[in-house]
Amino acid sequence: MSASNEGRDLHHVVVVGAGFGGLETVHRLAGAPVRITMIDRRNHHLFQPLLYQVATASLATSEIAWPVRHLLRKRKEIATLLATVEGVDTDGRRVLLDDGSAIPYDTLVLATGARHAYFGHDDWEPFAPGLKTLEDATTVRRRILLAFERAERETDPQRRAALLTFVIIGAGPTGVELAGTIAELARTTLVGDFRSIDTRESRVVLIEAGPRVLAAFTEDLSAYAQRALEKLGVEVALGQPVTACSAEGVVYGGKTLPAATIIWAAGVQASPAAQWIGAPADGAGRTRVDPDLTVPGHKEIFVIGDTAAVADPAGNPVPGIAPAAKQQGKHVAATIRAGLAGNHQDTPFRYRHAGSLATIGKRLAVIDFGRIKLRGALAWWIWGLAHIYFLIGVRNRLSVALSWLWIHTRDQRSSRLITQGSAAGRSAQPGKDPSEPK
Amino acid sequence: MSASNEGRDLHHVVVVGAGFGGLETVHRLAGAPVRITMIDRRNHHLFQPLLYQVATASLATSEIAWPVRHLLRKRKEIATLLATVEGVDTDGRRVLLDDGSAIPYDTLVLATGARHAYFGHDDWEPFAPGLKTLEDATTVRRRILLAFERAERETDPQRRAALLTFVIIGAGPTGVELAGTIAELARTTLVGDFRSIDTRESRVVLIEAGPRVLAAFTEDLSAYAQRALEKLGVEVALGQPVTACSAEGVVYGGKTLPAATIIWAAGVQASPAAQWIGAPADGAGRTRVDPDLTVPGHKEIFVIGDTAAVADPAGNPVPGIAPAAKQQGKHVAATIRAGLAGNHQDTPFRYRHAGSLATIGKRLAVIDFGRIKLRGALAWWIWGLAHIYFLIGVRNRLSVALSWLWIHTRDQRSSRLITQGSAAGRSAQPGKDPSEPK
Repeated sequence: MSASNEGRDLHHVVVVGAGFGGLETVHRLAGAPVRITMIDRRNHHLFQPLLYQVATASLATSEIAWPVRHLLRKRKEIATLLATVEGVDTDGRRVLLDDGSAIPYDTLVLATGARHAYFGHDDWEPFAPGLKTLEDATTVRRRILLAFERAERETDPQRRAALLTFVIIGAGPTGVELAGTIAELARTTLVGDFRSIDTRESRVVLIEAGPRVLAAFTEDLSAYAQRALEKLGVEVALGQPVTACSAEGVVYGGKTLPAATIIWAAGVQASPAAQWIGAPADGAGRTRVDPDLTVPGHKEIFVIGDTAAVADPAGNPVPGIAPAAKQQGKHVAATIRAGLAGNHQDTPFRYRHAGSLATIGKRLAVIDFGRIKLRGALAWWIWGLAHIYFLIGVRNRLSVALSWLWIHTRDQRSSRLITQGSAAGRSAQPGKDPSEPK
Repeated sequence: MSASNEGRDLHHVVVVGAGFGGLETVHRLAGAPVRITMIDRRNHHLFQPLLYQVATASLATSEIAWPVRHLLRKRKEIATLLATVEGVDTDGRRVLLDDGSAIPYDTLVLATGARHAYFGHDDWEPFAPGLKTLEDATTVRRRILLAFERAERETDPQRRAALLTFVIIGAGPTGVELAGTIAELARTTLVGDFRSIDTRESRVVLIEAGPRVLAAFTEDLSAYAQRALEKLGVEVALGQPVTACSAEGVVYGGKTLPAATIIWAAGVQASPAAQWIGAPADGAGRTRVDPDLTVPGHKEIFVIGDTAAVADPAGNPVPGIAPAAKQQGKHVAATIRAGLAGNHQDTPFRYRHAGSLATIGKRLAVIDFGRIKLRGALAWWIWGLAHIYFLIGVRNRLSVALSWLWIHTRDQRSSRLITQGSAAGRSAQPGKDPSEPK
């Protein structure tokens, strides 16, 4: 179990979650007099900013995911465990795992992320899946592609129209990217592949409860993004909260829209880290941490990333994005190092917002670097290069660049695969998921 | 439904199955005065010769699969249907689909392939999955990778040894390739990634009921392949049929071998095409066809590929490999063309064996071109170039070449992902599959 036998006397840091925050913590502890155990319930780190591209058949799952233990293989002081955490014994300083075993810690870093949330409407999930894991992405991809396949076979015009209606709920960056890419899929990639339907007649509807798309950007960039989406053929419905999701479609603003494919991009709920440690949480389940990112009353427990409620120097909530999680991981590592060196400090974490980026479609993006604001093709190039730069490994950078090259020069998306649950092998047939489009 | 409204009077060819045989039939019918409906229950053509590389984390699923309707998009006379065939009304000349609809045909080509078979031991399947679909490959990949993960957490030496024992049943090309690649995974790729286990201590056991590996090759090449496998660390057990598979392991030659991972590569069963049409079948369920590949009594129905029992000019059974299926597809297309031109012919199909290729491991392969026999690195290069050549699309050729480059220069396999069933999203946790290694 856990780490190697060497270094048993060293300070033991246990990191739960191999996302951006957890990995950055571990990277910044390189050379520190500690031994580390990294626990994740999945075997891979996921580059979530590009997950929507797996859902829209642009990228393969393996292009945006890396085995955690391979990433950490050269750090002999780190043991990686594939395990699900079920709780924390804060008095005994032990992380409790699903197999009944426990991992003792001196310092605990919880970086367990968030899942999509339905604001009290969990019954909507079968009809409006969200997008947080590779499985989510292949589920959404299957539903999108199957809807076109079923429309091709459907003779009833109303049912066919419902099959060709794609609803995205929530107009943050993920919702905008999904809407723009599905519109391109219908209007470019798939054109000519079908015989009974014209995929260009598809409707892509982006529904947002708030007053504008990309609310984290300036009003100017929001307005640009909306115009760009509409030019791609996306219908944008603002200020209209969704009041029902079902197999038939979606109800919003008092209207019922028959739609076979609904995708949820409207909200997240933090992982249950606060419950594990009995700490206070905000409405989204995020642990309320002290300014130094430790849990009140537990200087040995840090909570970071999407599962922590942190404020920036101006008092605004720190956004749930990769750069914020990484900055927090860096801060935690510095605090641990200082503590080990005998200079215990509770320096407050200060979030620095580098900028906001969002893509809308092919060669269309918006960037807000504060003083510098960009939109259109140049913004898209910066967005693309930044994402390739932050991918891990030369091989994945080449592979993603190759996939994008094909999309942009030949309108060909390489991952148009409808696959079932991997255990379903023998009996796999189209249409066995009861919540799928009918 | 079915094809476009134009050309309703044209002779209608329905092809079931978009494997090598079905696609070749359709390609060879280009320009013929026919309209064509291609039916497959999956949306993708699968390059099965490289499927074992998905199972062993070397390639991504999308690198060896292509959407059928995209492959056929430029042929406006072809309609592609994603549908499951449930039967054939041979009197009414209609293919019966799962949704209750029926597709009328003038000529029917059944090219529906084969599944792995357990020779009356279907209860072995949960413990010894086979390898025929993308879902099969991700299942096998998950089991292999999870076995190492669980071994890392296991403290009991006997259970750990079972977790590090990989059994492959059947020493044909697929079994040999799997055994060699798993041995390399354990002895090269994964070395250094784990802390509690030494993956080099894994046992890879290849069990074959017959007297030698790669029985389709000459005895000389078989012996070479066996020596090469043994050099890679594979234990080869010949002449020892398996008599039981369970969660505990495998029983063969009177011995019980505790093993958490068992992979079935020992036999196949044809798809139920013969049942659909009420035709005679051989022991493996393959339809017994006339020499011109039509079904006795039905000159309008062809059965080809792995689901047909065909003999070569010398009376030997034609092997279930891609080149054989393609030759049959070509023959069928020529027969249909001749019939339409008024020159009805029942020219017998003549199989020409171009050669046999099999890889054993990195830069190790055997090739039997009849007079020319090759083994080792040169054979491997020819094998690799041939497979890249036969892949569809420049993008996939580049992508596979890139993946192989990384494997061969950096021992890095890019698709080491443990993913659950894609619908399992939210609750996905390691170890939910009851038949997985314990």
